[in-house]
Amino acid sequence: MKHSDHSLTWLTCLPEAVPAQAVTPLDVARAEINQALAVMQHSIPVVLRPDSTLSESFCLEREGEGYILTGGSTGILYGAYRLIMSLKTGGTPPSGVQQPRYALRMLNCWDNAEGTIERGYSGRSLFFEDGRFDYDPVRMRQLARMLASVGVNVICINNVNVHDPAHKLIEEDWLPQLSDLAAIFRPYGVRLMVSIDYAHPLRCGLDTADPLDPRVADWWKTRAQLVYRYIPDLAGFLVKADSEHRPGPFTYGRTHADGANMLARALAPFGGALVWRCFVYNCLQDWRDTKTDRPMAAYKHYACLDGQFDRNVILQIKNGPFDFQVREPVSPLLLAMAHTNMALEVQLAQEYTGHQIDIYAMPPMWKEIFDDLPKERITAMAAVGNLGRDMNYTGHPFAAVNLFAFGLTAWNPDTDPAALIRTWCRLSYALPAAQEDALVSLLLGSRGVYEKYTAPLGLCWMVEPHGHYGPSPMGYEYALWGTYHKANRDAVGIDRTASGTGYTRQYDKTLCDKYENLNTCPDNLKLFFHRLRYDYVMADGRTLIQRIYDDHFEGCEEAEAMARVLETLDLPEPDRSEAARRMALQLKNAREWRDVTNTFFYRLSGVSDAKGRRIYD
Amino acid sequence: MKHSDHSLTWLTCLPEAVPAQAVTPLDVARAEINQALAVMQHSIPVVLRPDSTLSESFCLEREGEGYILTGGSTGILYGAYRLIMSLKTGGTPPSGVQQPRYALRMLNCWDNAEGTIERGYSGRSLFFEDGRFDYDPVRMRQLARMLASVGVNVICINNVNVHDPAHKLIEEDWLPQLSDLAAIFRPYGVRLMVSIDYAHPLRCGLDTADPLDPRVADWWKTRAQLVYRYIPDLAGFLVKADSEHRPGPFTYGRTHADGANMLARALAPFGGALVWRCFVYNCLQDWRDTKTDRPMAAYKHYACLDGQFDRNVILQIKNGPFDFQVREPVSPLLLAMAHTNMALEVQLAQEYTGHQIDIYAMPPMWKEIFDDLPKERITAMAAVGNLGRDMNYTGHPFAAVNLFAFGLTAWNPDTDPAALIRTWCRLSYALPAAQEDALVSLLLGSRGVYEKYTAPLGLCWMVEPHGHYGPSPMGYEYALWGTYHKANRDAVGIDRTASGTGYTRQYDKTLCDKYENLNTCPDNLKLFFHRLRYDYVMADGRTLIQRIYDDHFEGCEEAEAMARVLETLDLPEPDRSEAARRMALQLKNAREWRDVTNTFFYRLSGVSDAKGRRIYD
Repeated sequence: MKHSDHSLTWLTCLPEAVPAQAVTPLDVARAEINQALAVMQHSIPVVLRPDSTLSESFCLEREGEGYILTGGSTGILYGAYRLIMSLKTGGTPPSGVQQPRYALRMLNCWDNAEGTIERGYSGRSLFFEDGRFDYDPVRMRQLARMLASVGVNVICINNVNVHDPAHKLIEEDWLPQLSDLAAIFRPYGVRLMVSIDYAHPLRCGLDTADPLDPRVADWWKTRAQLVYRYIPDLAGFLVKADSEHRPGPFTYGRTHADGANMLARALAPFGGALVWRCFVYNCLQDWRDTKTDRPMAAYKHYACLDGQFDRNVILQIKNGPFDFQVREPVSPLLLAMAHTNMALEVQLAQEYTGHQIDIYAMPPMWKEIFDDLPKERITAMAAVGNLGRDMNYTGHPFAAVNLFAFGLTAWNPDTDPAALIRTWCRLSYALPAAQEDALVSLLLGSRGVYEKYTAPLGLCWMVEPHGHYGPSPMGYEYALWGTYHKANRDAVGIDRTASGTGYTRQYDKTLCDKYENLNTCPDNLKLFFHRLRYDYVMADGRTLIQRIYDDHFEGCEEAEAMARVLETLDLPEPDRSEAARRMALQLKNAREWRDVTNTFFYRLSGVSDAKGRRIYD
Repeated sequence: MKHSDHSLTWLTCLPEAVPAQAVTPLDVARAEINQALAVMQHSIPVVLRPDSTLSESFCLEREGEGYILTGGSTGILYGAYRLIMSLKTGGTPPSGVQQPRYALRMLNCWDNAEGTIERGYSGRSLFFEDGRFDYDPVRMRQLARMLASVGVNVICINNVNVHDPAHKLIEEDWLPQLSDLAAIFRPYGVRLMVSIDYAHPLRCGLDTADPLDPRVADWWKTRAQLVYRYIPDLAGFLVKADSEHRPGPFTYGRTHADGANMLARALAPFGGALVWRCFVYNCLQDWRDTKTDRPMAAYKHYACLDGQFDRNVILQIKNGPFDFQVREPVSPLLLAMAHTNMALEVQLAQEYTGHQIDIYAMPPMWKEIFDDLPKERITAMAAVGNLGRDMNYTGHPFAAVNLFAFGLTAWNPDTDPAALIRTWCRLSYALPAAQEDALVSLLLGSRGVYEKYTAPLGLCWMVEPHGHYGPSPMGYEYALWGTYHKANRDAVGIDRTASGTGYTRQYDKTLCDKYENLNTCPDNLKLFFHRLRYDYVMADGRTLIQRIYDDHFEGCEEAEAMARVLETLDLPEPDRSEAARRMALQLKNAREWRDVTNTFFYRLSGVSDAKGRRIYD
């Protein structure tokens, strides 16, 4: 199969790769609209009216049988894709001027130069192999169009853990190729970003990476000048420092404001952003240490620095205080930095959520985040990518819905998750109405099903260490990662209230009170915030232990129901076979989670299932 | 440091590598004696009297101030080393004709062609690197002399898991180099053996490896002819088949007698042995399956085949029914094959016994094996090696005691463990008498200490999966390996009596009764054979749970006492520093095992330590 045959499902209405000679978003917009009208056998007139003052915005107006699309330099392309999607789905294009809620809508690829992808579940890297660039230009254009079609405007192509030789991306010998790649993405309004190694100066003759040492600041200024000579519109640098064994300012007794600002000042002359990840915690914790509570770490490190960051610094903060678990409360740090630019980081790669084997549609999860996170608090969104060299880019064909929905959510976080999922389904598969309803419903519920058969009530981390697929109730219990549940014969969970670790105090009074109080703390987070006895009686009258059993039995049954629905759908090949193959694995996984988790708690509690279902002893 | 500077401690009295021009064991014997007498400044006359009828045997007779050493072709070399050791240690040489109890005394190296060693804890392979032979001839001669000095006469140089390209060892392009290597070992009376890939014919154009297919038998006959053309004294082939994903006769519905005999017949014309490992079990067990009991597997597979193996087949059977745990009963298969040649397999590599970081001297363990295994039952001994490219070959300098003692135990299994250890200590370190006593005592007790702080009462498998160093009480509990303890809030252990899995019935009545009866089953195997409640009262009046706590606290204290003893010893450098560095790691390991295991059982049982020591909750 030729690479050009690959495409994400939602762009099946645009089967041809856009010609390589398109050099501006306007060129692309025109080509895509012409192709779409031809393929869909529409003959309506569409007039394109570029208006550079609109930048990323656009406006679609009905005129007679056709449309007038007014748009900025990239806005006109976004408008074109929106119009095509509307025509394809039979919907009505949005009225009035459409502008993105967040200026930066970023995809973070965790690709290593050797060709692997950290937490990648859909094949090897699209960009690298064997320690060098190795990509198919046709596939790169396909990727750029996917991103543009949903409004993603930045792609960071290399892992935040910058393993040798990926640091060379900003060295003289790799920059020409980086520039070539930038040129492929440019017509789609997508700018490149690179992850840098904070300690890079140490590789180049300096004996320090101290952010307050003028030689270090000068080194980065000179380096930024070099990089921007090759890629004048580079979006900036992404940095993971002092985190999970990465070097950083702490090495020199400096704050992360010192480190971030120093780098930001090197980028400022070129309009670049310095994106600084806040995933900082003690990853060598002693399990005997009950004073340290990992979810409190990011807030402790950063909240005190609010207001100290330069204007072109963006702190990138994961949605929850742990690490992309199926259920976490919103990170208190996101609510604590009123005078700092922040990007909300979510993870499309299904690291803890099924490895793109199990079906797990994320839009409902993101909506929940925004229930607690005022949308104006943040200025950007970033997503860890779920793409690889697999023919369909995402392994499971349905995993594409998450990239699709991420882009449109970062454009407008008020978009309804169900509507996003329905649009993706309709664009991807021309299913009869009842089947489309069934697929939408299956995807909408998929996160809840996964949560039920895996993690009880916000407990997290009962997952196979390292791999993070499959159950391991004690896998992290005596480890160095600060992720414990301390289940014993009577109770389970960590008391994170004021009388416990005090984590709840990192929230404002409203949220703090809500989580502190067992009556208002949502069931699905009860074991995140509280240590509860197995005989604790939930609001609905069930004991905690019975609820754990019920959830696991029900989650498994619901996964089986999903499998039955899936069989009824007339999906095109190869998606039908691929989805069926993965569903068989998902069912195996669900049963393993059910039995292991139930047995684990049964052995501890000695309490049998009230409904007499089989729990192995 | 030059390679020739490396040597195992017990040969420090023979600092010079033997000249490469020595071509017979007699040459080597003469050179070694001359060197030893010179180094030790002895001037006694030693007369060598070769007598080929003695083969591997020798006789040392006092004559005046000197000795007459009569010995067979290799016996004379063994006698020379024995005399040197006696002179060095101030002991008396054994009187009368000395002949080895077992004809084959084999070292199995699990070295991969790529240069790694499976379960190797002392550096990379001495033989291979980057998928090819890569050895230092001087070090090879040192290795050969080490083996000869303790009577080891066979070395299998490649991993029983034959990973590509190690199968090439018996292919035309690698055989000349294999022949070169054999020539290095030959003057020391050490013959090579190779691990073969049972499915090798499939790599060479055959469409089957069915042992009853004449084409397969012919292929192996032709192959054996080729191999023996290059190495006429090859000891034979070592085979791991139908085990842990290795192919074997089961693939074709044949028995292991079919497979082994077919191969043995190819080797028979050349006097080669076919060593067939019996490590066969279901490594994809469902943890829910309580019918299958892994320790029963080898007996079930092989006992029914007793008497069906050719005379040059040797079944190689691990000492215990599991896999080299710190404490196992003797394998019932070793007691069940009266009409079959068997080799007892032990493991010098400290896979489950401390990775050559923790001190663990094995001779007392082997003595226990022979308490239940009549010595005449077996015809050979094999040891998985503990050697690598580290300067001292074994990582921890004290780990050398295990190779030393293995050779002499395979020569004479009646040798007293304490005497072996003392001899090694005196040969290795010229310590003052009190210090020597202290070191002997430390080594003699080391296994008991390790057992106490790690595995409770024969329970096994509470170790970190994959790596097998450090505690993980639930690491294997829901895995595919058939290694479960099923600890719950009330009890722990598997009932392997007649009323349980019936494993005890694989023993004769005496042993069966001993293990079945809680009053006669030794404490250190109680949880191997029985499922016991935490409040079960042991013979000494302690409850099971208290005994678990006591052992772990005491084991840790005893390790600390070992550390204090170690500090008092005037060991030469670098051994002193290296032993001290590793002891710090051992103490860390011991504390981790103590705390994790105690906390694990405390959380389950809810029972506090009767002595009020700290158990984390």
